[in-house]
Amino acid sequence: MALAHKGLEVDTVPWRFTEKEVIAFSGQGSVPVLVDGDRVISDSWAICTYLDEAYPARPLAAGAQARAHASFIRHWSERVLHAALFRIILLDILATAHPKDRAYFRASREQRVGTTLEAFVADRPAHLAALHKALDPLRATLRAEPYLGGAEPGLADYVVFGAFQWARCTSPVVLLTADDPVHAWRERLLSLHEGLAARAPGYPTVRAESQR
Amino acid sequence: MALAHKGLEVDTVPWRFTEKEVIAFSGQGSVPVLVDGDRVISDSWAICTYLDEAYPARPLAAGAQARAHASFIRHWSERVLHAALFRIILLDILATAHPKDRAYFRASREQRVGTTLEAFVADRPAHLAALHKALDPLRATLRAEPYLGGAEPGLADYVVFGAFQWARCTSPVVLLTADDPVHAWRERLLSLHEGLAARAPGYPTVRAESQR
Repeated sequence: MALAHKGLEVDTVPWRFTEKEVIAFSGQGSVPVLVDGDRVISDSWAICTYLDEAYPARPLAAGAQARAHASFIRHWSERVLHAALFRIILLDILATAHPKDRAYFRASREQRVGTTLEAFVADRPAHLAALHKALDPLRATLRAEPYLGGAEPGLADYVVFGAFQWARCTSPVVLLTADDPVHAWRERLLSLHEGLAARAPGYPTVRAESQR
Repeated sequence: MALAHKGLEVDTVPWRFTEKEVIAFSGQGSVPVLVDGDRVISDSWAICTYLDEAYPARPLAAGAQARAHASFIRHWSERVLHAALFRIILLDILATAHPKDRAYFRASREQRVGTTLEAFVADRPAHLAALHKALDPLRATLRAEPYLGGAEPGLADYVVFGAFQWARCTSPVVLLTADDPVHAWRERLLSLHEGLAARAPGYPTVRAESQR
């Protein structure tokens, strides 16, 4: 989304959890990894920061204060939103993962959450209610403005949208009701940049919802 | 804090919960109310927005995107941080309130929370733990930057600091440990603008802590 925002062309390389050797050149084991000439940058936030420095046209963050504020929203997304989604979709990710990745995924994630994936997601109604509550600040913000960036989408929108796109591509669970301002915002993000995010493979139920 | 940020002189009028007639001219019943010539503005956020429009020097929000991002932080503060503090300090506010306000305060707040003030705050260790957890995004942001605004304080800092100052002036509870990045940030805010916030009457335990 950040690359599309800036109108930059990019080749994407599909990757699976266990293909650590493919990204070993980045000096770490997680995606995303951006290669730009001889520059190698990993971590979404570091990539966005790099893009605004190297390609200042069409900024993702409109200045230092806007970036610092977006940093709070990033940490909220990582620590609150991802955690709430994790409790809903974690077992679905296992089913979506390539068969060769499943043993690794189960072992690494069960170690992280301290229980089985099945137990972790067992009480779905409670976890959906917790997600709804966790979205309170996002919902209140999006009642007043179309984007977290205000009239136009920017860094904070892409950071938070990434969490929803992650869920959309790995789980059939319907996370948002159609009357939720967060739902309308997610639709806006899905249709941005010629529908880039909507074209990514997502679950039929979610795609059908997004086409309503 | 917003007025001090801009270097604007202001006369403050002490006010108590039940003195609704004193602010009736504002068309509503809550403080703060700002009177600037023939303009009357209530609500902290509306006041900050007005100040940036009427006095654009030393902006609180550095542009539309920075303001929109701060709006998310405002809603987080109101819905997550205030709620977490409420469960800790609500009964202390009653003790701090002027005797003539106490019956009103108890009745209106007990109606809001649906139980007695005593029951609402009963499990303090649990509520302090919940506050600590709720501060995760703030803590992570302030590990990387001295202010929510980045290198300099701004709108988002004052919005969130307001919640801590509210607690500091109404409750003796120590909310933050000295090794918490949020604690160091609060100290910075207390000393800004020639120690404006530190000079406000606060509880001795909290003042002693801020002087360490």
